[in-house]
Amino acid sequence: MNISIVAFIIGTALLIEGALMVAPLICTLFYGEPVMPFIITIFICLVLGFLMRKKKIETGHLLSKEGVVSTGLCWIVLSLTGMLPFIFSGAIVNPVDAFFETVSGFTTTGSTILTEIESLPRGVLLWRSLMHWIGGMGILVFMLALMPLSGGTQMNLFKAESPGPSISKLVPKAQDTAKILYSIYGAMTVITAILLMIFRMPVFDAICIAFGAAGTGGFGVLNSGCADYTYAQQVIITIAMASFGINFNFFFFIFIIRKTKEAFAMEEVRTYILIIFVAIAAITLDLVISGVVRNPLLAFHEASFHTCSIITTTGFATVDMNMWPALSRTIIVMLSLLGACAGSTGGGLKVARLMLLVKSLGRECNRILHPQAVRKVHMDGRVVDDVVVHSTSTYFFIYIIGMLISILLISVDNKGWDTTISAVIATFNNIGPGFGMVGSMGNYADFSAFAKIILAADMLIGRLEIFPILLLFSRRTWKKF
Amino acid sequence: MNISIVAFIIGTALLIEGALMVAPLICTLFYGEPVMPFIITIFICLVLGFLMRKKKIETGHLLSKEGVVSTGLCWIVLSLTGMLPFIFSGAIVNPVDAFFETVSGFTTTGSTILTEIESLPRGVLLWRSLMHWIGGMGILVFMLALMPLSGGTQMNLFKAESPGPSISKLVPKAQDTAKILYSIYGAMTVITAILLMIFRMPVFDAICIAFGAAGTGGFGVLNSGCADYTYAQQVIITIAMASFGINFNFFFFIFIIRKTKEAFAMEEVRTYILIIFVAIAAITLDLVISGVVRNPLLAFHEASFHTCSIITTTGFATVDMNMWPALSRTIIVMLSLLGACAGSTGGGLKVARLMLLVKSLGRECNRILHPQAVRKVHMDGRVVDDVVVHSTSTYFFIYIIGMLISILLISVDNKGWDTTISAVIATFNNIGPGFGMVGSMGNYADFSAFAKIILAADMLIGRLEIFPILLLFSRRTWKKF
Repeated sequence: MNISIVAFIIGTALLIEGALMVAPLICTLFYGEPVMPFIITIFICLVLGFLMRKKKIETGHLLSKEGVVSTGLCWIVLSLTGMLPFIFSGAIVNPVDAFFETVSGFTTTGSTILTEIESLPRGVLLWRSLMHWIGGMGILVFMLALMPLSGGTQMNLFKAESPGPSISKLVPKAQDTAKILYSIYGAMTVITAILLMIFRMPVFDAICIAFGAAGTGGFGVLNSGCADYTYAQQVIITIAMASFGINFNFFFFIFIIRKTKEAFAMEEVRTYILIIFVAIAAITLDLVISGVVRNPLLAFHEASFHTCSIITTTGFATVDMNMWPALSRTIIVMLSLLGACAGSTGGGLKVARLMLLVKSLGRECNRILHPQAVRKVHMDGRVVDDVVVHSTSTYFFIYIIGMLISILLISVDNKGWDTTISAVIATFNNIGPGFGMVGSMGNYADFSAFAKIILAADMLIGRLEIFPILLLFSRRTWKKF
Repeated sequence: MNISIVAFIIGTALLIEGALMVAPLICTLFYGEPVMPFIITIFICLVLGFLMRKKKIETGHLLSKEGVVSTGLCWIVLSLTGMLPFIFSGAIVNPVDAFFETVSGFTTTGSTILTEIESLPRGVLLWRSLMHWIGGMGILVFMLALMPLSGGTQMNLFKAESPGPSISKLVPKAQDTAKILYSIYGAMTVITAILLMIFRMPVFDAICIAFGAAGTGGFGVLNSGCADYTYAQQVIITIAMASFGINFNFFFFIFIIRKTKEAFAMEEVRTYILIIFVAIAAITLDLVISGVVRNPLLAFHEASFHTCSIITTTGFATVDMNMWPALSRTIIVMLSLLGACAGSTGGGLKVARLMLLVKSLGRECNRILHPQAVRKVHMDGRVVDDVVVHSTSTYFFIYIIGMLISILLISVDNKGWDTTISAVIATFNNIGPGFGMVGSMGNYADFSAFAKIILAADMLIGRLEIFPILLLFSRRTWKKF
């Protein structure tokens, strides 16, 4: 393990975190709130960052191992420093709660332990939402975009952090890829915020909601979530959420190289859109037939909002889904397990993985019928390497086992299965709200400290796609060779 | 598709079913109950069997495809004829209910739609338990033991039916393997029944309970399940259940070729025993600490009985586990997903599969740390072929997806998540009772006909390890080539 390079990467991330915290600092100045919580935290980030970058890097070459370890540690260190404004401002006194809230922010989960948020300082609220935006693309991709370490370095970092099984390399250099991704991400966020403002959402709300939708987070600024926004505003949020759940290659094809046909030919995007339409139709029907929502148009509106909110793992809500009939609630749970497209800012298993697994299943059926036949798995017209197919299967296994172990640990809290299972699904897949006590109008305040730490770990594990956290606990990772 | 050979196999199975039904017929004669229900059914089985075997077989060679299709169809046809005694005797009037109960019997599930069983004719009760015993080893293995079709034929059938990822070939000829397996199975069943009788269980109860434990079924003969048997009798049932969950290779090593050391060196058996001990310890502690059972010895007794009952997917119960604390209930759910050893009569995922998946995960971790390194998965000191590892991963995927789709369909019944989820887990893994409405003291009577058919399908799918049923619905299966 090349410790010096890991320290250098984490130090750089701390500097960037400190720099980004200037935004909420300006916000506190603007609203005349106490500035010290942010100034102290920025100071701590900068000092720690410079100290960690002080030691000379032994070699410029970054191995896969160091990339994975840096990713895992980075998110933990950034959460430990990112929680300081909550504590210093007195918004959240308990350190476990503050850590939970911060991890929930950076991992774009949106689960909260706060029972009341409208009384919080505006700067703190902005920081909550900004964490979503930072976490959405991954702060390490930020580093990629801003400062290259050395030739072979970036791809290994990028591989550990980028969401989904395999993001197609858009352009030869990883650094350029990151810059393009961030340009698209930034532009789409700005458009969302402006559209919300045009439809008369207050500027502060519009910025925070845009950050939340872009990162597929879910923290809001009102106690009522998104319930009090107008229908027009909710429609814009729906469209924004659905867009940020799409594989970013799609936007690259459309806006950068203007190949609309190729964009719409992407199998994953087509499947993602199909799933959204089927889920909206099923939930709308179920809501109307069960009599929970009598007006079909309103049922369609609610079904659209929450389908897009959950499949993208955002977690915004306009109603309490605990009141929905069983079939709709089960569909929502299925969507939360599935998640958005690979290469988007969303969490969950990812549509591309599901497709690979289904195709792999088709191959297995064929193998049983015709044991001699050899078939390859195809995606977007190209052969998928067997290593990727097997990695995906193994990922599915650890994904399910990880959730089962968490459910076992959380059940010690004795909160009933609805709450226990959906809390784990909601954190592991970075959604935010679940059902029962942690429903869209509830929160995570009543869990024990032990359960909160497990759930925070679940958010990190889910967001980083398990291995970067899992490998931190493997002896083999820390061996000299 | 060679239809003639499929018909021949199903016809033979029908003849065997008719022959085995002589046992409950004798029982009805002994207790002076109406004999016609069984006589008519036997007649139907024999006539159908002879008709299906009438057509000359085109070629003696049985392809993988025909083996898989025969297995799937066989269990469906046997259930359709096996349910007739219930209907003719008036024990179960509704055909859907009778089908559910019969499938539950043959698949060794033990889920019942009956609210009261003590008033049923003894012959019908014996047939319920005998179905467990027949289903435990698979009626097709029966056919293997009794009558070979042709040279290459047996292995393909055996492969589709034998439980678990790969049963080591004990002896070169499949037919001999089946005979040895049945000898062990028969001897162990007789020993269980005799032991129960020695400890003063009524002869009829002892035989039925022995059939249930041997097949890891779960149908009893008393309304109270196993609650009214003495502690000594319950201990014998516990040990019997645990034994029938062990890979039968273990008994082959010990009793036939007397290699005790090799037997205890089997990784799967060691893991299985370890899991049982850990689960018993955890549940005992949880029961005592939570105050649900204050006497530690009684807690240990209850924990042992239900751990062995659930991990082997038998489903006998002495108490209502709905009353247990959350942690214990969650452990029980985990055990029910896991299931027993491959090559045993139990259902579930199987311990060997879990081990393969965990080892495959270890390999994946290694691949991330050292992308160039190539590692093989080992089991019992031998290299496991990559095809087996990947098949296992794919199996895990369809196993989870199968349950999720079932949960989605069953949730239409609006019974609450406890009941819905645990009903699917209990049927898919061939356990029998779950939690909530389908708890160990409840039953499946209140589900809609649609839900009952889905749950019966789940039992078949789980018991036959998914593919034989899945492939019945594939167009490719029925293509000429």
